[in-house]
Amino acid sequence: MSLESQPQRVAIVGAGLVGCLAALALANADKTNPAAPAYEVTLFEMRPDPRLQKASGQLRSINLAVSDRGIRALNAIDPQMARRVLAGMIPMYGRMIHHKQDSHGECRQESQQYGLYGEGINSIDRGVLNNKLLDELDAVGVQALFHHKLTSMGMGEKPTLFFNDETAPHEFDFILGCDGAFSATRFHLQKHMRMNFAQEYISKMYLELYIPPAVGADKFSIDKNHLHIWPRKDFMLIALANTNGSFTSTFFGDWDMSDHLVEGPDASRDVLELFERNFPDAIDLIGRDALVRAFATNPRGALVCTSCKPYNLAGKALILGDAAHSMVPFYGQGMNCGWEDVRVMMELLEESGFDTHKAFDKYSETRHEDLLAICDLAINNYREMASKVVDPLYLLRKKIDGWLSRALGERFWIPLYTMVSFRGDIPYAQVVKREARQQRILRRLVNGIVGGGFFAAVGCWWLQRKR
Amino acid sequence: MSLESQPQRVAIVGAGLVGCLAALALANADKTNPAAPAYEVTLFEMRPDPRLQKASGQLRSINLAVSDRGIRALNAIDPQMARRVLAGMIPMYGRMIHHKQDSHGECRQESQQYGLYGEGINSIDRGVLNNKLLDELDAVGVQALFHHKLTSMGMGEKPTLFFNDETAPHEFDFILGCDGAFSATRFHLQKHMRMNFAQEYISKMYLELYIPPAVGADKFSIDKNHLHIWPRKDFMLIALANTNGSFTSTFFGDWDMSDHLVEGPDASRDVLELFERNFPDAIDLIGRDALVRAFATNPRGALVCTSCKPYNLAGKALILGDAAHSMVPFYGQGMNCGWEDVRVMMELLEESGFDTHKAFDKYSETRHEDLLAICDLAINNYREMASKVVDPLYLLRKKIDGWLSRALGERFWIPLYTMVSFRGDIPYAQVVKREARQQRILRRLVNGIVGGGFFAAVGCWWLQRKR
Repeated sequence: MSLESQPQRVAIVGAGLVGCLAALALANADKTNPAAPAYEVTLFEMRPDPRLQKASGQLRSINLAVSDRGIRALNAIDPQMARRVLAGMIPMYGRMIHHKQDSHGECRQESQQYGLYGEGINSIDRGVLNNKLLDELDAVGVQALFHHKLTSMGMGEKPTLFFNDETAPHEFDFILGCDGAFSATRFHLQKHMRMNFAQEYISKMYLELYIPPAVGADKFSIDKNHLHIWPRKDFMLIALANTNGSFTSTFFGDWDMSDHLVEGPDASRDVLELFERNFPDAIDLIGRDALVRAFATNPRGALVCTSCKPYNLAGKALILGDAAHSMVPFYGQGMNCGWEDVRVMMELLEESGFDTHKAFDKYSETRHEDLLAICDLAINNYREMASKVVDPLYLLRKKIDGWLSRALGERFWIPLYTMVSFRGDIPYAQVVKREARQQRILRRLVNGIVGGGFFAAVGCWWLQRKR
Repeated sequence: MSLESQPQRVAIVGAGLVGCLAALALANADKTNPAAPAYEVTLFEMRPDPRLQKASGQLRSINLAVSDRGIRALNAIDPQMARRVLAGMIPMYGRMIHHKQDSHGECRQESQQYGLYGEGINSIDRGVLNNKLLDELDAVGVQALFHHKLTSMGMGEKPTLFFNDETAPHEFDFILGCDGAFSATRFHLQKHMRMNFAQEYISKMYLELYIPPAVGADKFSIDKNHLHIWPRKDFMLIALANTNGSFTSTFFGDWDMSDHLVEGPDASRDVLELFERNFPDAIDLIGRDALVRAFATNPRGALVCTSCKPYNLAGKALILGDAAHSMVPFYGQGMNCGWEDVRVMMELLEESGFDTHKAFDKYSETRHEDLLAICDLAINNYREMASKVVDPLYLLRKKIDGWLSRALGERFWIPLYTMVSFRGDIPYAQVVKREARQQRILRRLVNGIVGGGFFAAVGCWWLQRKR
């Protein structure tokens, strides 16, 4: 902390993965940068402290895939902390495609590597991760206030927040809204500024299933180091490993098609029929009864894309993570991107000499195209996961991508998946531009080969004829 | 009312122009259609009863342009009521273009007719109109509850509404949300359904000015039967007449450019300079002091376009008017379109035998493209009003449009403005399609004439040469 600067009072709304990281980043700022002011951070969360909730029998776990951008964001704050928080992640080096049953009744599995050099993304339990981040906040003395629901917001000289309909405001130097896709911060902020906003639901729903640990030496019933996919085009099943040997599995399908599986008169029969035809091996993994029960009792989740602009109101408020750009889960980038938001914000604060007004304005200006880019990539990746992974042309393209990248080097050629998941130094919008250029070159190359082949054939024929 | 049917309890949220009309339409339904159920309508409004507000000295009035679609919607409910409500409108048969000062210091005015046959749109005071509609509701016994702010919504078998944070719900058969661009109904409804939504602010702001009545025989200082426009491309001034001889005038310009006029260190000087250069005749109409005071004290308004889909939750809730589709004011269609919403809803209710579920589903399905169309037309009309009206090519196009429409008849050719404002029987989406076709034909015609001219010239030259 520089001696002349006053500590700055910051409110962070939402103690999820992004809110916690933003709190850690600000609380740590003056330790890594002597020019930084001391930030006095208070974290407000509507829900109770998740660490106090009793583990109720079989606790369902939701897992996420941490990739390079996420790890980079943690490391930028404190590599020691990053190591502690990310301990126990299960690396996934590729997709395991579960093909449809063949004529012999076999369900073939096919491994498709993610990276060219053995890179992986990492399965981690969302709840455990969140709890660890909260523990880290306790350790650095950040106050987290649970059961605090944002109910109103004032925007005078300094922003004020009202919680739980109380009339006494809390005043801050600035506030960060990290309260998810249906952000109350964003909602109240919109009353004080002209913020463009859009939300669009896609036609797919999701429903969570559970694959219990196996009995025996290897507690994992399928390979733990893969992200398992049963790609069936209009619907699919995926599964990610948990440390205890279980897998969290998710069924994705259209809302329309799911209606009869959940609410229909013969729902149980329809679920089993669907799974017998499309995922017979998954029935064995999940269990018939558990499968039917899951469809009868687990809620169906909606998938929404939101976008807005700008993300800030002067130097007084900024929204980050899902509050600013919720995306569909098909690229596994939601959390990674939210954490990257925090890294980018901190870099802009440093760059501006910790002038929040300048830094937040620049954030809105420069971050927008990256956020639009990843939201689009995420939507488009449904098709990749659910159908292209079994398309021979797509697999050929992936091969060529790999050859070119190895032959030309990463300066000239990087496969799309690698750029998104393993090269957090390339901003998302750059990723999209580079991929478009690579696609263009590849098309020309193919046209060239086909065209060259044609002329060669004509030449041969002509020579033949002359003889 | 058919004997077997129970009266249906309906809540309408918002007692503005659209909410009042929807209430009148439902309250009247069983008088015009014997198959209709009796609708027991309650109107809820957050604000106090506008009729009880004391006229404070010089009450500022905001006026609107009623056109065919609006009149049609009123007539569909009750032509007598329409006559009463719309009495005193001031017809505007065209635009009066106020040109820039010429070299002789003259500010030329140019009349441009709206219709081919003397049709007009009609200036009416928003407040007076709203009060008359409320009086009509009193007359048919619809209860209007003011000071009722919607704070929560339940969606069980039947929808329930909570007002003013009270815990006792009001239960209804269905609810209509007519509570404007920042609709609370829409906000609460979104928690119960997957509603796509977008809001986008345009770069323009508006600021209201006031032209007082003239002293003398004619109390109107400029022609009352025109919509006055001072088109200056990036900004403009407009004025519509009120019955008392005053005009409500509105300045439109970019937020950026308006900053120094409102908040700048030399705001008064800058305002006068802008007006002396661009609207010298308007200074005389408004008055120098009043002009400067208006910029110093009147708030700047934002202009937002919103859109959403779907508009209904089963047969339980539907949103209408600005709550569903707020648009920029440049086509004068906001209220007209909102009233048309009511007409369309009533037609679909009749068509479905008053099955709200069927009718509301069909409303969402069929009305969407019309609403998108008019929102787009409204945005595009800024350019028409602010710059194209002084473009000779645009004026030529308008002339040709008129000739073709007169020559071919309205079955084959109708100018765009006529379709939007005077032909409420053509849905907005149809208007856009027809106009696109007309533009295409016109382009071909022009190309044909130019091409034909070229070949004729070449032919003449060739003949000349041969001699």
